[in-house]
Amino acid sequence: MSKQDYNTIAKRMMDIKYMSNAVSILHWDSKTYMPPKGISQRGAQISILSRNIHELFVKPENGRLLDSCIKKSDELSEVENRNVELWKRDYDKATKLPSDLVQKLSNQQVLTENLWEEAKERSEYGLVKPEIKKLIELTKEKADRLNPEQNQYDTLIDIYEPKVTAEQITKYFTPLKEAVIKLVKKCEGQCDRDIMGIDPDMLSVECTQQQQQKLANFLMEFIGLNPEKSRLDTSEHPFTTGYANDVRITTHYLENDPMGSFYSVLHEAGHAIYELNLPQEHLWTPVGDTVSLGIHESQSRFIENIVGKNPTFIEYYYPKVLDMIPGFRKKSVSIEQFVRAINFVRPSKIRIYSDEVTYNLHIILRFEIERDLFAGKITVDDLPQVWNEKMDEYLFQEIEEDREGVLQDTHWYGGAFGYFPTYSLGNIYGGQMLHAMQEQIPSWKQMIARGDFQIIRNWLIENVHQKGSLYDPSDLIENISGERPKPQYFIDYMNHKYDKIYGF
Amino acid sequence: MSKQDYNTIAKRMMDIKYMSNAVSILHWDSKTYMPPKGISQRGAQISILSRNIHELFVKPENGRLLDSCIKKSDELSEVENRNVELWKRDYDKATKLPSDLVQKLSNQQVLTENLWEEAKERSEYGLVKPEIKKLIELTKEKADRLNPEQNQYDTLIDIYEPKVTAEQITKYFTPLKEAVIKLVKKCEGQCDRDIMGIDPDMLSVECTQQQQQKLANFLMEFIGLNPEKSRLDTSEHPFTTGYANDVRITTHYLENDPMGSFYSVLHEAGHAIYELNLPQEHLWTPVGDTVSLGIHESQSRFIENIVGKNPTFIEYYYPKVLDMIPGFRKKSVSIEQFVRAINFVRPSKIRIYSDEVTYNLHIILRFEIERDLFAGKITVDDLPQVWNEKMDEYLFQEIEEDREGVLQDTHWYGGAFGYFPTYSLGNIYGGQMLHAMQEQIPSWKQMIARGDFQIIRNWLIENVHQKGSLYDPSDLIENISGERPKPQYFIDYMNHKYDKIYGF
Repeated sequence: MSKQDYNTIAKRMMDIKYMSNAVSILHWDSKTYMPPKGISQRGAQISILSRNIHELFVKPENGRLLDSCIKKSDELSEVENRNVELWKRDYDKATKLPSDLVQKLSNQQVLTENLWEEAKERSEYGLVKPEIKKLIELTKEKADRLNPEQNQYDTLIDIYEPKVTAEQITKYFTPLKEAVIKLVKKCEGQCDRDIMGIDPDMLSVECTQQQQQKLANFLMEFIGLNPEKSRLDTSEHPFTTGYANDVRITTHYLENDPMGSFYSVLHEAGHAIYELNLPQEHLWTPVGDTVSLGIHESQSRFIENIVGKNPTFIEYYYPKVLDMIPGFRKKSVSIEQFVRAINFVRPSKIRIYSDEVTYNLHIILRFEIERDLFAGKITVDDLPQVWNEKMDEYLFQEIEEDREGVLQDTHWYGGAFGYFPTYSLGNIYGGQMLHAMQEQIPSWKQMIARGDFQIIRNWLIENVHQKGSLYDPSDLIENISGERPKPQYFIDYMNHKYDKIYGF
Repeated sequence: MSKQDYNTIAKRMMDIKYMSNAVSILHWDSKTYMPPKGISQRGAQISILSRNIHELFVKPENGRLLDSCIKKSDELSEVENRNVELWKRDYDKATKLPSDLVQKLSNQQVLTENLWEEAKERSEYGLVKPEIKKLIELTKEKADRLNPEQNQYDTLIDIYEPKVTAEQITKYFTPLKEAVIKLVKKCEGQCDRDIMGIDPDMLSVECTQQQQQKLANFLMEFIGLNPEKSRLDTSEHPFTTGYANDVRITTHYLENDPMGSFYSVLHEAGHAIYELNLPQEHLWTPVGDTVSLGIHESQSRFIENIVGKNPTFIEYYYPKVLDMIPGFRKKSVSIEQFVRAINFVRPSKIRIYSDEVTYNLHIILRFEIERDLFAGKITVDDLPQVWNEKMDEYLFQEIEEDREGVLQDTHWYGGAFGYFPTYSLGNIYGGQMLHAMQEQIPSWKQMIARGDFQIIRNWLIENVHQKGSLYDPSDLIENISGERPKPQYFIDYMNHKYDKIYGF
């Protein structure tokens, strides 16, 4: 009977996954082609659909079916048992929260996020402070409801990165922080534009949107995004959405910044090949889905940074860029200068404009603040000051305005605590994957030096994408590399790469 | 308490309307931007969402709420009572059909439509005949279930054109048929290309897609489709979708046929301004929705034909076309020739390529066949022969292949019986609207002669769009014109127009 119960619950859960996927297409539409005045009816549509999906999901009968499957797990296959485990995990999360708390949280999130926009514009943290206080209280209540036995911040992290704790992250981030600060100082010494003749502004050249689109299409082909299953559009902020046989990425074409859209396309393409290459036979079930934000981010950063900013790949693509963006020819930037400009390391105030190295400090700073906030070591009142102090200590930046500081990102004001660390976890995972891949494909750099991405792509498909959610993130990393996640591989990768580029 | 029940049912029904609208956006996406391999997951999404919408709609509690509202109708406003009436009408339709019949019908429709594609390709009616027989039997059962007291075909017509019967349509179509055949014969005498120097092939000129797009944008502006609430894209077959503040039309750009997309844009724009100008205060309820296919078609045909093919409008736009489509200059087509070419009347075999006049004969033929089929006067076996005989009699066309005959349209094979007459009802309604408008705005032709569509547009908004579904189609026509629908105004319009163009 357990098999029959499994089939029943699987059918229900797959329907829900199909419906959620439909909602993400509606979201995509609202960011790409929807006429602007359609926004309020689209909001209503998405909220009504989401509520209906939630109601279908939390039906008590689903809980009974899942429990029945768990009781007779010996009648189910390994994959089926894993699906039951993951459905149950989400079912528990969805049913443990009383609906009035869900409602209050959702309202508070919308309110706080809207107010944050104004606060950021006016650079006035005080404006949003009373609301984010309330939001954090509600978020703590949520964490307690989800798991009264666990510390709150760990419960929140688990939403985005299953089975990873603040303690583990602290262990990863402490040596990472040390290594990055050391590397940044080294680079700072060398990166002075007067000494090295490298200047990231040399990447700013006149170009049309058509030229940038041409470049983007070249990348889509290089990565091997099947045009029968994917597409590229423009939106204000780049993102990836979709699943299985319909995965879509977006980019934005900024004035005089062709390499901006170039790397945003590579980043989103990394997300997209993950969604496109999940195990066919398990699609629409958890095992046939991506496993965590950290692993997702490892894929986008692997393509954007490890492959995309590798000097041998840059040497391969630079002549093509010169052809497609004639503005570069006029500047007569040498390939050496270009490689260094793409890999320029320079501390800055804004996370989303930071480089591959300093990016981690932006994340570590946010993680430490979140952790200490939920541990009660700091309060909402302290946030701007703590932010600014850490910015000074880690990135040598003096923050003068909250809009460049504690107000710069939307995450917290939308209630996403525990989300930030997944970005650097992605880097750490990616470094460890690179280490494993390098052993199996020692010639990977020669391949990208001639524009051949297929073997690397297949390696990622086989080792990451095809595993879906069969393993929790840390187990997946262990499967791939033989070791639990550790930051040393990513640190080694950075040190080795920048050593070579800057010749310390 | 009735007021409270009204609010409860209104909330539920509005949620359902929002969800259905979301489904139509997913459908639009599948015809415009969806990567081709996304088709099967999109099919699953739409079917799952539709089933969920259906389940929410047919809940017994909804029936109880509606009955309670009907019992205490004196506590509700006129609009509220009308909403209740229309919700109840649809609720009864949805609940009277046993779910196994719905399932059987849906399966048989898909099967028959797929087989029709092959049958049409091979021009072999026999291939699809056994399946369409079954489909018609199931459709008859559906009609009996919906209304056991009414004759089946009337019940089917009522789905698309509420409160209109086959007897009424016969009364409209009999004089229309006679008048059209007479007019076609007159035109045939005059339209000979050797005598009049008019040749519809003169509209075939070399042009790029960009040039056609420019023309389409000019029309969007002329009609006044607000770009904040609407958009134009390309798809294989032109269509309109959306509602309220987000209404989208599509067209297709055919080679060397700029006037093809020109008139398809005008047609769809006519549908679009209806959806865009429904009464704001009643949106998402039936009163704030379009009333019938016939009235919808009256709007598209009013813009496409009555306005769009009026000689004074053609005189206005022709210089612009000459500028935007340089190919026309090379052909040195005079304005008189161009007006006649746009309004060329020539019997043909294919409905969708036929002109404003003969189009009605294509519809009348289909209506008569449907009517006689459901009355048992002819059988599925007779269809090709009856089709071909009527084609010969009304349109003087000898049908040699079923693909040009009984297999040309998808409607019947998808189970849409009772749908075809709404096309010519749209013409008849449009003619009657024109008559009423002409009395109130005698100078309408001078207005379009100078490219001013605003007053006509406002007249349509005020008299048609803003009425939503407050009245059934025939009542709406009576409200506008003071008379029940009758074909004479459309007949007069045609005779007068073609008299002037061809100078009989």
